[in-house]
Amino acid sequence: LAEFRLIKQLSQRFGRTGHRVLCGIGDDAALIRPSKGQDLMVTTDLLAEGVHFRASTATLADLGYKAAVANLSDIAAMGGMPDYMLVTMAIPTGFRTSMITNLYRGLMAAGRPHGVRLIGGDTSASADGLFLSLTMIGHVRSGRALTRSGARPGDGIFVTGTLGDSLAGLRLLEDSPPAARLSRAFRAFLIGRHRRPSARIKTGRALSSHGLASSAIDISDGLSGDLAHICEQSAVGAEIDLRNLPFSPACRAFAAASRLDAADLALEGGEDYELLFTVPPSARARIDRLVRNAECRCTCIGIIRPPSFGLRMRNSEGRLRRLPLTSYQHFNKGLPPAGGPSCSR
Amino acid sequence: LAEFRLIKQLSQRFGRTGHRVLCGIGDDAALIRPSKGQDLMVTTDLLAEGVHFRASTATLADLGYKAAVANLSDIAAMGGMPDYMLVTMAIPTGFRTSMITNLYRGLMAAGRPHGVRLIGGDTSASADGLFLSLTMIGHVRSGRALTRSGARPGDGIFVTGTLGDSLAGLRLLEDSPPAARLSRAFRAFLIGRHRRPSARIKTGRALSSHGLASSAIDISDGLSGDLAHICEQSAVGAEIDLRNLPFSPACRAFAAASRLDAADLALEGGEDYELLFTVPPSARARIDRLVRNAECRCTCIGIIRPPSFGLRMRNSEGRLRRLPLTSYQHFNKGLPPAGGPSCSR
Repeated sequence: LAEFRLIKQLSQRFGRTGHRVLCGIGDDAALIRPSKGQDLMVTTDLLAEGVHFRASTATLADLGYKAAVANLSDIAAMGGMPDYMLVTMAIPTGFRTSMITNLYRGLMAAGRPHGVRLIGGDTSASADGLFLSLTMIGHVRSGRALTRSGARPGDGIFVTGTLGDSLAGLRLLEDSPPAARLSRAFRAFLIGRHRRPSARIKTGRALSSHGLASSAIDISDGLSGDLAHICEQSAVGAEIDLRNLPFSPACRAFAAASRLDAADLALEGGEDYELLFTVPPSARARIDRLVRNAECRCTCIGIIRPPSFGLRMRNSEGRLRRLPLTSYQHFNKGLPPAGGPSCSR
Repeated sequence: LAEFRLIKQLSQRFGRTGHRVLCGIGDDAALIRPSKGQDLMVTTDLLAEGVHFRASTATLADLGYKAAVANLSDIAAMGGMPDYMLVTMAIPTGFRTSMITNLYRGLMAAGRPHGVRLIGGDTSASADGLFLSLTMIGHVRSGRALTRSGARPGDGIFVTGTLGDSLAGLRLLEDSPPAARLSRAFRAFLIGRHRRPSARIKTGRALSSHGLASSAIDISDGLSGDLAHICEQSAVGAEIDLRNLPFSPACRAFAAASRLDAADLALEGGEDYELLFTVPPSARARIDRLVRNAECRCTCIGIIRPPSFGLRMRNSEGRLRRLPLTSYQHFNKGLPPAGGPSCSR
């Protein structure tokens, strides 16, 4: 019960009302007044203990941070601005108040820089593990939202930032053998990218407000799986060139030390939360200008093809091969710590 | 994995897009276009196995139904119309596809009569029990929402329907001794009220659109606890008359057979999902007309008093007593089945 009083306090501390939030926490529902000429986006993500996270690889503050980023990233992928967050949580017995405070701190640390306000939620006890489900609401100018369904043959395929860092970070946390051979700075970078990824709100917003992208998605299941979503919903094929994938020096060093292909970390690794988007030829010049001023690099990694082309990749020798379709599994229940995430066809 | 394919199918079957739902299930976020002149309400409720429900007292269809009603009832209490639902679920291993189908059937059975559309969600495995978290979005004409904070001394206190039925139904399901002495029809009625309560959307909407209620809340924690919420947020006191509480014949019969006071079932029993609302003297005549045409009875059970009065009740002998402040606990983990819900100060 002390925990629930604390959550009430935290809600009051972090919860907000204002011009457009007529009721925040404390009534039957939150009440918001939408702005004229805006569409609303709503997304929800669930994190379950033993499925999406383990206490051994993430603090509760990191968990809160990442839960918020997963939702922020969905808003970013549609070119929106995040506004409101609702938090539901089932809390196991034995949780101390400091643990819940830390979780909220992480949530707010990710949301606050983007102006996200906490407007509601629900809390209960849990007979077993911790469950955290967020709902995030954002907005975009009417008709400007980016979807997964607008890619056309000839469009360039772009990604923000660098790929594979999060999976490399997770493997380091799970203490796989090559860890010792990496510099402390590289370790810290990769683990930071796993624990506290960035949601590409600014880039998504620039793409939607300038009408530059024909489709977009965030990379939460790995490049291959998320590119497949774009292709499926746009009814197109795609060709990517693995030689063009953007990697951080830390990820390259990790891959070399682990005798892995960095491309595999990118293709299979979920939770990078970078944006994958397509750009029509007419917008290529403008995208290059945008990229120079962006929050992060944007790299062209391929081209959209007709549906009959399917999904193919040019490998490190320049040969065209089928793109292996993997889907990121956070990790399996009961997997030994060194196992890392598994990928299944 | 078969289950997740099924959920995709169910989402596609039950999910909807349309004039105001620009993207439903299948993109990074749902995209909706709000109507001009409307405020939006957003509510979220979490149901955790072993805390809010047990497989022994509810089928999965009932659970889905009740989860939807808990959210619908929040919208009703603010005088809104429900529009959209997002469903997040963590599913334990061993769940068969038919079980998930049943859960969705229950969700939609409650939502469909009110025109609720399924527009998104998230699904994962659960290492332990079943967790279900819904987010519901509704609307109300700008400035017309009912809140908990508008009650003033002199306002009448009303409730819809009958009270105590849900708790009586739960006790019957948990097979407490008096069960045998009740008629089959009474048993079925009370269990039905526990498993498939009604959300008072029509009444809430009538109250908000005619501007008749100064405050409102839904009874999910028991009459005493929810009245206390109104009093706290409106900064007022209240007097209720237990002799005026509305009971069903079945609840009266159950109370008599169990040697319980039906008033205690009303004061302590959560999950009735009736509305508790206050009416200024100027609106009393109009409320009486409304009640004659309402979906359910509305009963005046007391009057709002100044804050110094506190919360009091006139008991069965007509004596004024402090209102005991109880808060409904669904039930305790590990409680023997006959224990029923417990109430704590």
